[in-house]
Amino acid sequence: MLYSPLIDELINALRCLPGVGAKSAQRMAVHLLEHNRPGGLRLSQALKEALDKVGNCSDCRMLTEQTKCSICSSSKRNREILCIVETPADMLAIEHAGGYNGLYFVLMGHLSPIDGINPEDIGVDKLIDRIQQENIKELILATNATVEGEATAYYIMEKAKPFNITLSRIARGVPLGGELEYVDGTTLSQAISGRKRL
Amino acid sequence: MLYSPLIDELINALRCLPGVGAKSAQRMAVHLLEHNRPGGLRLSQALKEALDKVGNCSDCRMLTEQTKCSICSSSKRNREILCIVETPADMLAIEHAGGYNGLYFVLMGHLSPIDGINPEDIGVDKLIDRIQQENIKELILATNATVEGEATAYYIMEKAKPFNITLSRIARGVPLGGELEYVDGTTLSQAISGRKRL
Repeated sequence: MLYSPLIDELINALRCLPGVGAKSAQRMAVHLLEHNRPGGLRLSQALKEALDKVGNCSDCRMLTEQTKCSICSSSKRNREILCIVETPADMLAIEHAGGYNGLYFVLMGHLSPIDGINPEDIGVDKLIDRIQQENIKELILATNATVEGEATAYYIMEKAKPFNITLSRIARGVPLGGELEYVDGTTLSQAISGRKRL
Repeated sequence: MLYSPLIDELINALRCLPGVGAKSAQRMAVHLLEHNRPGGLRLSQALKEALDKVGNCSDCRMLTEQTKCSICSSSKRNREILCIVETPADMLAIEHAGGYNGLYFVLMGHLSPIDGINPEDIGVDKLIDRIQQENIKELILATNATVEGEATAYYIMEKAKPFNITLSRIARGVPLGGELEYVDGTTLSQAISGRKRL
């Protein structure tokens, strides 16, 4: 015996959320139906509306319901620097950190041929178009410091080289508050090889 | 800078799900919008439909879209035994375990005056009505073996005593495969005091 069909369908639908398995989905469904129906209705509507109206920014591929996102359409940003990030969350993290005033380009993932994610899926063509058409002087490669992130940065670097713009990669080293004793060896050797002259 | 309004609303709405905080909600929203729009649409519709149509079984308070759930309306169940559980998931767990053929009563929670959950919220009146009107011979108290579960079982036991029916509580003891060395002391002493004659 299982739940009745509509509840079963809800449980299965909840499993499309990342990190939600059978037990969590069951718990969520019962919670919404039994203890938080207004919240469930709000979620259903918010989801429908967002799916209807949210698309990608025509310039940077960030998720937005406008044609251009608030950063790309802002007149206060430096349009000569482009920071390339993997996800919207990465872009927000850099914005929250402050200190960066240029534009962004969101790849919405990283190269991973084994999962079928190829250059066209992360918008490399569009990026090259922008480099050709706009007055971009520097490209900051801010993909993650993971194997895939490094590979993606390397691929984009190779593609962007012919255009004679400055290419940079975010610095790697010991994080703030990091004690050398507990930092892993690779990070430490990169911190040393990437030392800055005082 | 935050996400655009519709995405913000979706992230906030996702936080009504149990166990979902700010970061998870953000990850879920981006995942649905960027990588799984059909799944998101399915979730929105399943949620709406379930909220519209699913109510509680008129007999046992289980979540169902029918007036009576499949167990209460089955002719194959023993209508003289009533098993009292806290949640639909507990009811399903007992069904999956097999061996029980009676009816259920789902409290949809446990007594917790500190959280404002009183006897009327867990349907004790309705339970007493059933005991009075139906031919119930035994009440199995299968609430959790937690402090709240015990208190709830005790309260229901006191309420049901005057009706002269058999009252029982699920057995506590060493779980299958449990090694005595690693079982906590309370469980062990209950396993000994509740020993069965061979």
